[in-house]
Amino acid sequence: MQGKFNQASRRRFVGGSLAATAAAWASSSAAQATPPGSVKREVPPDPSKVPGVPMGQDGGYGTRSQFETEVRVRYDKTSTDQSSWTFTPLAQGHGIITPSGLHFERSHAGTPVIDPSRHVLFLHGMVRQPSKFAMAQLRRYPALSRIMFIECSGNTLTEWSKPTLPTVQQTHGLTSTSEWTGVRLATLLNEAGVRGGARWVLAEGADGAAITRSIPIDKAMKDCFLAYEQNGEAIRPEQGYPLRLIVPGFEGNMHIKWLRRLEVADMPFMTREETSKYTDLLPDGRARQFSFEMEAKSVITSPSGGMTLTEPGFYEVTGIAWSGRGAIKRVEVSTDGGRRWQPAALDGPVLPICHTRFRFPWRWDGKTTVLQSRCLDDTGYLQPTLAQLVAVRGLNGPVGSIYHLNAIQSWQVGADGKVTNVQIA
Amino acid sequence: MQGKFNQASRRRFVGGSLAATAAAWASSSAAQATPPGSVKREVPPDPSKVPGVPMGQDGGYGTRSQFETEVRVRYDKTSTDQSSWTFTPLAQGHGIITPSGLHFERSHAGTPVIDPSRHVLFLHGMVRQPSKFAMAQLRRYPALSRIMFIECSGNTLTEWSKPTLPTVQQTHGLTSTSEWTGVRLATLLNEAGVRGGARWVLAEGADGAAITRSIPIDKAMKDCFLAYEQNGEAIRPEQGYPLRLIVPGFEGNMHIKWLRRLEVADMPFMTREETSKYTDLLPDGRARQFSFEMEAKSVITSPSGGMTLTEPGFYEVTGIAWSGRGAIKRVEVSTDGGRRWQPAALDGPVLPICHTRFRFPWRWDGKTTVLQSRCLDDTGYLQPTLAQLVAVRGLNGPVGSIYHLNAIQSWQVGADGKVTNVQIA
Repeated sequence: MQGKFNQASRRRFVGGSLAATAAAWASSSAAQATPPGSVKREVPPDPSKVPGVPMGQDGGYGTRSQFETEVRVRYDKTSTDQSSWTFTPLAQGHGIITPSGLHFERSHAGTPVIDPSRHVLFLHGMVRQPSKFAMAQLRRYPALSRIMFIECSGNTLTEWSKPTLPTVQQTHGLTSTSEWTGVRLATLLNEAGVRGGARWVLAEGADGAAITRSIPIDKAMKDCFLAYEQNGEAIRPEQGYPLRLIVPGFEGNMHIKWLRRLEVADMPFMTREETSKYTDLLPDGRARQFSFEMEAKSVITSPSGGMTLTEPGFYEVTGIAWSGRGAIKRVEVSTDGGRRWQPAALDGPVLPICHTRFRFPWRWDGKTTVLQSRCLDDTGYLQPTLAQLVAVRGLNGPVGSIYHLNAIQSWQVGADGKVTNVQIA
Repeated sequence: MQGKFNQASRRRFVGGSLAATAAAWASSSAAQATPPGSVKREVPPDPSKVPGVPMGQDGGYGTRSQFETEVRVRYDKTSTDQSSWTFTPLAQGHGIITPSGLHFERSHAGTPVIDPSRHVLFLHGMVRQPSKFAMAQLRRYPALSRIMFIECSGNTLTEWSKPTLPTVQQTHGLTSTSEWTGVRLATLLNEAGVRGGARWVLAEGADGAAITRSIPIDKAMKDCFLAYEQNGEAIRPEQGYPLRLIVPGFEGNMHIKWLRRLEVADMPFMTREETSKYTDLLPDGRARQFSFEMEAKSVITSPSGGMTLTEPGFYEVTGIAWSGRGAIKRVEVSTDGGRRWQPAALDGPVLPICHTRFRFPWRWDGKTTVLQSRCLDDTGYLQPTLAQLVAVRGLNGPVGSIYHLNAIQSWQVGADGKVTNVQIA
């Protein structure tokens, strides 16, 4: 299917690009600065003619190539650099795992610096035996590992009323997937002995904002866990080091980072984060509270906003789909603005509450068109159009309904190959 | 089950450890050097009382906490620091993903420094259309992602005759798991048009050693792929940046790093790596050649050599199991030197040709004993004892049969709690 395009492309490459890169060689290594997370090395003209970098030169912990430059970018309209967010570069990754160094950040008082040997978790309230735990103690309990996404409920919030941010990193980059390992919250609660009538658990972080959220005890007992490990090593500081609460499928702000306190009670705590923040104003003026689950959502990450298709021909349309309620059952792609939907292939493991990679072969004819994806999760929920979502949720917030925008995303491919963020009826 | 131990442990902690850590506080942050892969930050006595580190202070690419110090360690008996290997710290990870910065290394001429814009892959030999590919072209093809282990065939080679290296990092740390993304080798071969009679594909790396291996064409067409991405970002330099051949389940040296050339032929190429190296001398003096598949293997990573159990009571026995032939079907653990075997729980996704995490609850009675694990893969192959393996493979090499040691590993827990590497009949 892609044979013709690629042969043509290869001929062009052989005739053109090699000469161009050879010409660029003399100045390329001198001009380049070292990006974050890499070590600057001299680039030999033929790497097979010189001894390579000795092993262990990186101190036993490897870094990226100096040619790899993708980074988290910060939202530029937040008022302080401690209460802000940075976006995962979704356009660059083509699997499901997010590198820990590129996992999105959302913090209200920056990243606290915590010595794990002094960190203590308190468990109190409606339990028979109030307790405190050192990190070394938590690591002694039976553990579990899950590959799961965390998505900020504010992901995509700029896109309610009109297409606003240009790239998929900015529109959808507040979701990331890691392998998380830790101890079940149920293990600690059962050991402490939950008293009759207990219905909620408060979780509190050790940052300057002391972020607090109430979690229904059924959820706490079902699948929440306290993670100390992310992608095979200790959690990164900005992700909650040394301890983060994982609340599978619920909105990101409930996955309390730098977890220092759990309190069991018979009522929700009505904290700042669940009253003035993280509620959803509805068209009739009432607010939706405790909108925990992140609904099924998908987005095409390539081609996506800011990219340019250089010529008509074969392109693989790829992206991610996820649902806080379970596993992704099906993803469909439209290459004609939603008139016709065709099934995409799900690639790699399809895990519950996890990014799922989809791929769809497409031949671009060189004309203007719109690319979209939509997903169905295993509860039967189908990702809505923006119009369907706005009809239910309204546009009462400063930029719309603010949180939980999981509508179908549209990318327009222009006749010039430029891909832009659009909204269509 | 673990209730009693943990309550006792918690009481001790409350009475003792907190005071000790408070006393240690004054000097702890001043004395500490910054480990690789982290940024040194001042540690406040109460992190919730000061503003945290602003977002983006790491240049948009996150690093580890300064308190995290695990690194790859180099084998100290290799003659040069360019032809050597470094081991993944298996005792520290408790899931299945290996952080890219801690993926084991085995190189013969160090890590070449390659500019991806100048890197070219050649495909020639018995094909109708010899071709070359720039990285940008390879990224245009349909991709696939797989979470898979790579294991060096020399993993555990020091342990044939007697227990030699003390820790699981050193005995088993030449295996690591990543999510790899790239283009199927079959896609390129089909496009180039393989000629009748072709049976093998040579793969060659762009390092100073120009590592070359012959791969049966059936395997090449079945599931090999050319990876440009590892764990959601470009492959790390020491793992083959910008392009690595993935040969699922086959020995690590066939996963050619810095891939620059593929040649199709009717016979194997009998390269240095498949004649003088990477063959297995048998008891009768003949050599086993093309011992591609990594057989089923498991190891307990905690408790493991070098650790000390501080007191009798509950411990979770955990480790990894993997097979180059498919998925892990069952893992069993013995806590009495192999007399009785009990099933362990498989945790997290159980994927083919991938590390699989197992967990087993254990209460240590304070007496000397031996911990072991063994696994069964979905072909019905059961991990052998060392005696069974030696009976077939002999000990003709300098340290035994050298490659492909997949026997059951024994860790002795002494009455003093010290865990050591032992071999038992």
